[in-house]
Amino acid sequence: MANLIQALQQTLEHEIPLTQHLELQVLAYDEQGLTLGAPLAPNINHKRTAFAGSLNSVVTLAGWGLLWLVLQEQEIAARVVIQDSSCSYLRPVNDDFTAFCQKPTSAEIAKVAEALHKRGRARIELRVEVRNTTGVAVLFTGRYVMMRSEP
Amino acid sequence: MANLIQALQQTLEHEIPLTQHLELQVLAYDEQGLTLGAPLAPNINHKRTAFAGSLNSVVTLAGWGLLWLVLQEQEIAARVVIQDSSCSYLRPVNDDFTAFCQKPTSAEIAKVAEALHKRGRARIELRVEVRNTTGVAVLFTGRYVMMRSEP
Repeated sequence: MANLIQALQQTLEHEIPLTQHLELQVLAYDEQGLTLGAPLAPNINHKRTAFAGSLNSVVTLAGWGLLWLVLQEQEIAARVVIQDSSCSYLRPVNDDFTAFCQKPTSAEIAKVAEALHKRGRARIELRVEVRNTTGVAVLFTGRYVMMRSEP
Repeated sequence: MANLIQALQQTLEHEIPLTQHLELQVLAYDEQGLTLGAPLAPNINHKRTAFAGSLNSVVTLAGWGLLWLVLQEQEIAARVVIQDSSCSYLRPVNDDFTAFCQKPTSAEIAKVAEALHKRGRARIELRVEVRNTTGVAVLFTGRYVMMRSEP
């Protein structure tokens, strides 16, 4: 897992330069899911809480990163893009924050792998949460499309 | 209008430092609405198109900025926060881009002003579009809450 975490961190920094300004960190990845983190300072807004655009960037990347990791594990070369998303900003985030994206079940991953092998394309909906000390602060749902790369 | 545009630019740069990394520019404001712009280079992703998180930041700020301007015009001191949003990424954005937020009608603005004066709180839904040469590339709907500041 440690190698995968490092590889995702490098991929994000290299391929999406804005992540360096967000000071995005890949914190943990296991069978439960992926956790990304970012400090408040570079993402602050006029109310001294996290800017909605920064929060949305981090949750969007938590879903994208989770699929990137799953595709690595499945040894499938595919591109991942977001199709649409909805995001509720339930409570202010007034400290450094983390975003957690739950990993799909083995059955869901098998379905994605089968669709990519058969049709070269798969779609999945992922849920990401940002929590603070009082509970869920941001709730995000994103639909992502995966397209198999030409061999 | 020129003074208001400059004041919004300064407010965004000062209060949301990430906008400087997005290289966000307040381009135009008139009775039709507000146009923000950003170059592709600082907002690029792994597919050489605009990163969804950057697009989402710019459309979120187009709605926020429009309400900031309307409140200035109405001479009402109020804070604006986003409550929830949905965003469809319809086409890739592979060049510098603009986000346009349509201004509410005079009747809608009067309703907001009345709610803020009477109850200290108002809510509004705004639609923002990012267009490229082939049509609408990103379609965003955001619900914002305005809270009157203590006099």
